Amino acid sequence: MELVTKKRMQIFSGRGYPDLGEAVAEHLGMKLGDVAIDDFANEEIYCRYQENIRGCDVFVVQTHCSPINQNIMEHCIMIEAAKRASAKRITAVAPFFGYARQDKKARSREPITARLLADMLTVSGADRVVSVDLHSQQLQGFFDQPLDHLTALPLLVDWLRGRFDEEELVVASPDAGRVDLMEKFLSHLPGATPAYLAKTRTGHNVARTLAVTGDVEGKVCALVDDMIDTAGTICGAAEALMERGARKVLALATHPVLSGPALERIDASPIDRVVVTNTLPIPEGVSDKIEVVSIAPIVASTMRAIFEDQSVSELFDDQNQ
Amino acid sequence: MELVTKKRMQIFSGRGYPDLGEAVAEHLGMKLGDVAIDDFANEEIYCRYQENIRGCDVFVVQTHCSPINQNIMEHCIMIEAAKRASAKRITAVAPFFGYARQDKKARSREPITARLLADMLTVSGADRVVSVDLHSQQLQGFFDQPLDHLTALPLLVDWLRGRFDEEELVVASPDAGRVDLMEKFLSHLPGATPAYLAKTRTGHNVARTLAVTGDVEGKVCALVDDMIDTAGTICGAAEALMERGARKVLALATHPVLSGPALERIDASPIDRVVVTNTLPIPEGVSDKIEVVSIAPIVASTMRAIFEDQSVSELFDDQNQ
Amino acid sequence: MELVTKKRMQIFSGRGYPDLGEAVAEHLGMKLGDVAIDDFANEEIYCRYQENIRGCDVFVVQTHCSPINQNIMEHCIMIEAAKRASAKRITAVAPFFGYARQDKKARSREPITARLLADMLTVSGADRVVSVDLHSQQLQGFFDQPLDHLTALPLLVDWLRGRFDEEELVVASPDAGRVDLMEKFLSHLPGATPAYLAKTRTGHNVARTLAVTGDVEGKVCALVDDMIDTAGTICGAAEALMERGARKVLALATHPVLSGPALERIDASPIDRVVVTNTLPIPEGVSDKIEVVSIAPIVASTMRAIFEDQSVSELFDDQNQ
Amino acid sequence: MELVTKKRMQIFSGRGYPDLGEAVAEHLGMKLGDVAIDDFANEEIYCRYQENIRGCDVFVVQTHCSPINQNIMEHCIMIEAAKRASAKRITAVAPFFGYARQDKKARSREPITARLLADMLTVSGADRVVSVDLHSQQLQGFFDQPLDHLTALPLLVDWLRGRFDEEELVVASPDAGRVDLMEKFLSHLPGATPAYLAKTRTGHNVARTLAVTGDVEGKVCALVDDMIDTAGTICGAAEALMERGARKVLALATHPVLSGPALERIDASPIDRVVVTNTLPIPEGVSDKIEVVSIAPIVASTMRAIFEDQSVSELFDDQNQ
Amino acid sequence: MELVTKKRMQIFSGRGYPDLGEAVAEHLGMKLGDVAIDDFANEEIYCRYQENIRGCDVFVVQTHCSPINQNIMEHCIMIEAAKRASAKRITAVAPFFGYARQDKKARSREPITARLLADMLTVSGADRVVSVDLHSQQLQGFFDQPLDHLTALPLLVDWLRGRFDEEELVVASPDAGRVDLMEKFLSHLPGATPAYLAKTRTGHNVARTLAVTGDVEGKVCALVDDMIDTAGTICGAAEALMERGARKVLALATHPVLSGPALERIDASPIDRVVVTNTLPIPEGVSDKIEVVSIAPIVASTMRAIFEDQSVSELFDDQNQ
Amino acid sequence: MELVTKKRMQIFSGRGYPDLGEAVAEHLGMKLGDVAIDDFANEEIYCRYQENIRGCDVFVVQTHCSPINQNIMEHCIMIEAAKRASAKRITAVAPFFGYARQDKKARSREPITARLLADMLTVSGADRVVSVDLHSQQLQGFFDQPLDHLTALPLLVDWLRGRFDEEELVVASPDAGRVDLMEKFLSHLPGATPAYLAKTRTGHNVARTLAVTGDVEGKVCALVDDMIDTAGTICGAAEALMERGARKVLALATHPVLSGPALERIDASPIDRVVVTNTLPIPEGVSDKIEVVSIAPIVASTMRAIFEDQSVSELFDDQNQ
Repeated sequence: MELVTKKRMQIFSGRGYPDLGEAVAEHLGMKLGDVAIDDFANEEIYCRYQENIRGCDVFVVQTHCSPINQNIMEHCIMIEAAKRASAKRITAVAPFFGYARQDKKARSREPITARLLADMLTVSGADRVVSVDLHSQQLQGFFDQPLDHLTALPLLVDWLRGRFDEEELVVASPDAGRVDLMEKFLSHLPGATPAYLAKTRTGHNVARTLAVTGDVEGKVCALVDDMIDTAGTICGAAEALMERGARKVLALATHPVLSGPALERIDASPIDRVVVTNTLPIPEGVSDKIEVVSIAPIVASTMRAIFEDQSVSELFDDQNQ
Repeated sequence: MELVTKKRMQIFSGRGYPDLGEAVAEHLGMKLGDVAIDDFANEEIYCRYQENIRGCDVFVVQTHCSPINQNIMEHCIMIEAAKRASAKRITAVAPFFGYARQDKKARSREPITARLLADMLTVSGADRVVSVDLHSQQLQGFFDQPLDHLTALPLLVDWLRGRFDEEELVVASPDAGRVDLMEKFLSHLPGATPAYLAKTRTGHNVARTLAVTGDVEGKVCALVDDMIDTAGTICGAAEALMERGARKVLALATHPVLSGPALERIDASPIDRVVVTNTLPIPEGVSDKIEVVSIAPIVASTMRAIFEDQSVSELFDDQNQ
Repeated sequence: MELVTKKRMQIFSGRGYPDLGEAVAEHLGMKLGDVAIDDFANEEIYCRYQENIRGCDVFVVQTHCSPINQNIMEHCIMIEAAKRASAKRITAVAPFFGYARQDKKARSREPITARLLADMLTVSGADRVVSVDLHSQQLQGFFDQPLDHLTALPLLVDWLRGRFDEEELVVASPDAGRVDLMEKFLSHLPGATPAYLAKTRTGHNVARTLAVTGDVEGKVCALVDDMIDTAGTICGAAEALMERGARKVLALATHPVLSGPALERIDASPIDRVVVTNTLPIPEGVSDKIEVVSIAPIVASTMRAIFEDQSVSELFDDQNQ
Repeated sequence: MELVTKKRMQIFSGRGYPDLGEAVAEHLGMKLGDVAIDDFANEEIYCRYQENIRGCDVFVVQTHCSPINQNIMEHCIMIEAAKRASAKRITAVAPFFGYARQDKKARSREPITARLLADMLTVSGADRVVSVDLHSQQLQGFFDQPLDHLTALPLLVDWLRGRFDEEELVVASPDAGRVDLMEKFLSHLPGATPAYLAKTRTGHNVARTLAVTGDVEGKVCALVDDMIDTAGTICGAAEALMERGARKVLALATHPVLSGPALERIDASPIDRVVVTNTLPIPEGVSDKIEVVSIAPIVASTMRAIFEDQSVSELFDDQNQ
Repeated sequence: MELVTKKRMQIFSGRGYPDLGEAVAEHLGMKLGDVAIDDFANEEIYCRYQENIRGCDVFVVQTHCSPINQNIMEHCIMIEAAKRASAKRITAVAPFFGYARQDKKARSREPITARLLADMLTVSGADRVVSVDLHSQQLQGFFDQPLDHLTALPLLVDWLRGRFDEEELVVASPDAGRVDLMEKFLSHLPGATPAYLAKTRTGHNVARTLAVTGDVEGKVCALVDDMIDTAGTICGAAEALMERGARKVLALATHPVLSGPALERIDASPIDRVVVTNTLPIPEGVSDKIEVVSIAPIVASTMRAIFEDQSVSELFDDQNQ
Repeated sequence: MELVTKKRMQIFSGRGYPDLGEAVAEHLGMKLGDVAIDDFANEEIYCRYQENIRGCDVFVVQTHCSPINQNIMEHCIMIEAAKRASAKRITAVAPFFGYARQDKKARSREPITARLLADMLTVSGADRVVSVDLHSQQLQGFFDQPLDHLTALPLLVDWLRGRFDEEELVVASPDAGRVDLMEKFLSHLPGATPAYLAKTRTGHNVARTLAVTGDVEGKVCALVDDMIDTAGTICGAAEALMERGARKVLALATHPVLSGPALERIDASPIDRVVVTNTLPIPEGVSDKIEVVSIAPIVASTMRAIFEDQSVSELFDDQNQ
């Protein structure tokens, strides 16, 4: 028997943030595949694909939002079920990749949980992984298989460009760890100028203060980061920038983790506007300051490129590494 | 350089049910090892061993109780940290093994989550596994490495023996799936008689009823099972036994899952007494009918035997498979 | 260079039961592929594919019949040769899966040979496995890759339906372990009634007898099982059913292992007819009581579905798990 | 808890050639460990260790003699059982390693069964392997783990030395493939001279004849080989040597496969004496010409060296590769 | 979404011997793919594919020529980059496979580097391997995945046939290890006759001499080997043949390693002509005696067959094993 | 047989930088083990352990210095040989870990060579790895097995402390990527103050300049980095610091890669003194400015701790992550 080989793409979403999955499917003119997911009385997760996925190119979308451990388990269980249902290739799409900050032993006898999570997805049956703005690029090396790394940078740059003249803009790194990201923003905004903040001190036993390098007076300062978790750093940075005469402070980040005191802090801070993507869900109307740019088109284009064997880096002008 | 090799045993407990871990350690005359475990603001779990475990025979005790997915993740993270901290051998001790009932595809396109969990523990770094009364024995074959399988049978038999004459006892299986377990109880109570229940019907469209095989009139009936989850089956069985003239009905099981309506059902049922072990935590005083027998001594003896390379099956007269 | 991808299916049979392989191929309108298999003087097995299988979807059919260990080795050797000959995908088709009953440690220090066999097929190069009515469903979890599980249930039900009114039929489980199977038969024969047999006893030191639950008087009783090995259980059950007044006793099973005293016992028993499939070869005319239903069409349809990425469970209305 | 680590050695034998296992144990002043091995009615093999082997250094001795496929399966099953019984290290001892000659693809689409067998032992749980005079040395590279390679050379050289003056001896290679072995013999017998045989021909369409290089007239010619299977080559060589005036022809080989017409051929040949070891069983009194030298002391010494971490190559003056 | 699957072939060459890669591509009517390869200041190798290879059938050509260790590392790095760039299948093409002679432990505590190299290519991401005239065929079993083994035999035979009558030709093996190769040549030159050389000696303490078997007087003798490294053996053999009255001596080999004193020795030897292929680069005009036959057409045809799932052995009439 | 287990430590060094291996052994009062390493005529590396290492705890020391690719291959080959020689545990000691900077895809279709190198060491047989001041900490997650990470920080801090008052010291980061390292130095030098340099610019199309944050006037500035490769960054930073009025500039780094124009640049720069360790060899007297602190004692202590199962992090007050 001989057949011309066809390939079929299907997208399934976990329960973590189904709106994102639906938005991605819609951008591709597709519907989410039908999968039943439920909790048993003792909280064990049950899942079953309601349609044939044999030989399909299956994308399992689940961002690692709260409740994070349950959503990770659900992601793995969905992948395992797809493997046993004879999917041809399984791509785990995790716009926010959980535990990405635990990417090294910062002290002795700690785990490297990001590597563990990579191993869990692999052992479940994931053939490849898609994620957005990983906390450290080295995380790509935690996988043996290919990982497609996307970036929200073009979205955030476009947001800025549409609202401000480049000349009035300062792109600011809230600490030493984000100077690379600041540089990437500047390469798209040649008229803007940089600033960066860092803890410093003036001598023995003298308390550390936050130094600002770069002229911010009268400028619109855009603080950039990969994620906003408890918002402590970014709010502290915003205050320092205002003290140095900034006209307005914005905060731009890919992942709105926004846990613990984050919303309160943001509301109390001098930050004018927080621009984030929807790699994680945010309750609508949670804060007037927060504006959400949809990551769905970018994730959708990437998935289409993966399915069609087109270059992913071209979608980003190779700025996505 | 040459050294005589020594081996050192250490026990650590996750946060799922620390009292059980402590009880086990106490039975061995040991203290639980010092490990810091915490949640970050976004619920990611952090762990760090506070003492040197290099070259040690480490036992990581975590029963998969509620919140079950978080406790499983914590178990894996602790094992991963122990691996990177150069433990010589890591034994995952999971008195109740999560997802054990999802041990096969009951319908198409389901996962086999018990296998996935086995793979997760393995990829985290577990060299061996200890568990109690697994839902199906075949689960041993889900692991590539050795699994020590314990049973609460001797504890439950002793409880019966201390309170009743064998001649007044009937050991009853609540459905067809537990006849094997019933037989095991009877082999230790040669004076007792068996009974088993099963759904039946008398013809086309006639509702099924619960048939009881074996004489139960005037007898003390001990229903036996591996776990009590929502308690539906066991309470239905108890009613059927009482209808057939049983003097008293008891329920004996290893794992008190007791989720959803379980406690209500038990209180409303004719069951006189529910005897379980503490492989899972039960809030004290939750029901007057529930009596808990401690599994800790059995788990402790097994761990000592593993450490000392003694036979585990001898501890159970080879009744633990 | 660019090409449209085509896929080509090829079927090869080992020497265990070549008639079955041929029957399967014929149902697909195909011929068995050409493979030379021979024994060297010292019984080592030699095999060589006589035609190009590069890039093919290869199905290697070998049921694990007598001489079972040699046939298993031959199965593995054929798969290894296909792997090195660059087959694209290799499916091991084992209608009867050897060692399926050794799926757990029943006593300490036993092997789990079914898992070992799964590992052997995997290490040889099998990408997937097809089998029929495995002794326990959990065996699916012994594989890391997908397993397509078929069932002879529809064939056996059809045989009954074509010969008896449902109302005169009793479906009987010969022991506690087959009640599940009995229930599956009944779901297809809503007019029939159930019966089950189990060992019982009446007190201290009193010999066990075989209890029958369900009304069998004047009925045609169909004993159902996954396999008939030495036929001890099924013949004992048949006698008990006749003693309770059954009009006629039939035995239906998927796998005719029929080893040791099986044929003698069947001939001497009150069983009227033994209906089995040809997952294992039976010498023709070996017993007048034995009737063989061909499994080949089911295996063939499954293989076609696998090749064409169609749903396998739909072929069985999802009754094949 | 802290303990001084001890290690314990245990030897178990399969049913292939138990006398060899016993002889090895005896040389170490040990008894074979107690393991039950049986066949079920359908020829499936059952095995169970009757004593605790937890933490032990276990040697599983099984030579791959007839019935070869069954003995290989039994070897794997015993290793699998030892792994699950928590043996610390498992050494597969296969004095004759089955399928060693299928160590390459001699034609397209053949298997490399020797590699498959290596993988099977590994997946069963073997940590290391011991074998004698493998057909090709490259087979060591088929394993990822260490292999201890022994040689019967010293035994066979000693046999010659005790019976003949070196000066009257010719060591002869029966074909081009054994010249290496011939050289090894000569390095231990500096007074002897070499001879080798090879097929040749004199022109177009002229039948090939067996050419002998080296002076054999009046000499005692010792043909050397790793194994004697059907004895065709060795008997043909013996005739050619006698035709060239050899006084006496001997055949020395490690493995007495002796399958098919071997014994008849040997009896009919001019070979005076066939000297082999007992890596494979030979029925006693099967031929007056065959003399057996026991390999057991060498295997025993090697196992002791492995257990005690002593050099194995020193036992053989590094001639065992 | 559904698509007809297409496959696309791309060839990339390392820096070891780019002319060979280009010649291969040209034979296929293709261009080498664009890959940037460079050394950093500290000699670390950098590589980047300059075009999209997602979903492609990628062939990475690198012969293991001098500097051999650097070229092997470069080969692995290129394969690793192709894996992470989502190539669908990666074939490592190594016409000369490095370390092929270290295919066994010749003495205790040596590595088996050929196996290590196989593992390195595999762990880098190679799905299959192509090589020419491996030093020992057993090397195929060092890989778990398929290896396509080519031979330069037809090229070298054609060279002979075009220049000499078969009747005047003798094919000679320079030592015992190449008799197999000699036989293969003869099977294509039925009119030629064989000869082989081997070290011999006549008694105690008498120096070994080189014996020649077969009549060479007045004949054109073609010495055949898989490679010429330092040329010691082949030049010694040529002298012995001339002493026995050969009219002319040729040397034919696949791999021109030609290291150390090789060229000097060849020039000083009575060898008339050395015919080799270009699996390794030779500086042009390095010696008048050396003639190079291009291996590129054979490698190209094989790659096309692999891409198109055609039989490779048919290209060689199954003489390539 | 039963034995008390002993463990024995042995250290072997590759040819990359044997003085370092010897210095390490000497600090432990040991001698380097005897291993023969050679190059064949075609540059293939040969190695053989000259003494028994069976059951030993073997440390294979090879820093990845120039010629880097050859030294990496040699490292892998030595580990492979140790594995096959039955070493009990193999620790790869690579004070400078090659390719550590290629730890991520900086652009599309690049390799992650640091991960490849980790995989190569693992597949060779390394059970654990020891390295010093890895370029990024995330590299620890590239390994599945434990990695002991050392730091030269205490050595370099001690050097500063012995020569300067803390109050006159400024610790400077030469770019944004080293601020973390600067902070670590400061935590040991509480009297010193920080400075950091970063590229900046003042507007559209205006060239970037190097900004210095922190007061350096009249101070001794210690630039800190993990390695000095071509010395461009560090020399540029030194100039900027002098321009801001620094009294003296020092450069401290762990790894003296010093490739290409490094030495020239250093000599021409205003740097007063370059302090490095000997993780890589430096020709003696190569520059008056360079001072070498020996890393050997730290590596030796770590190896002893690994052998004796003592805490490694305690040796560094947990500053080594």
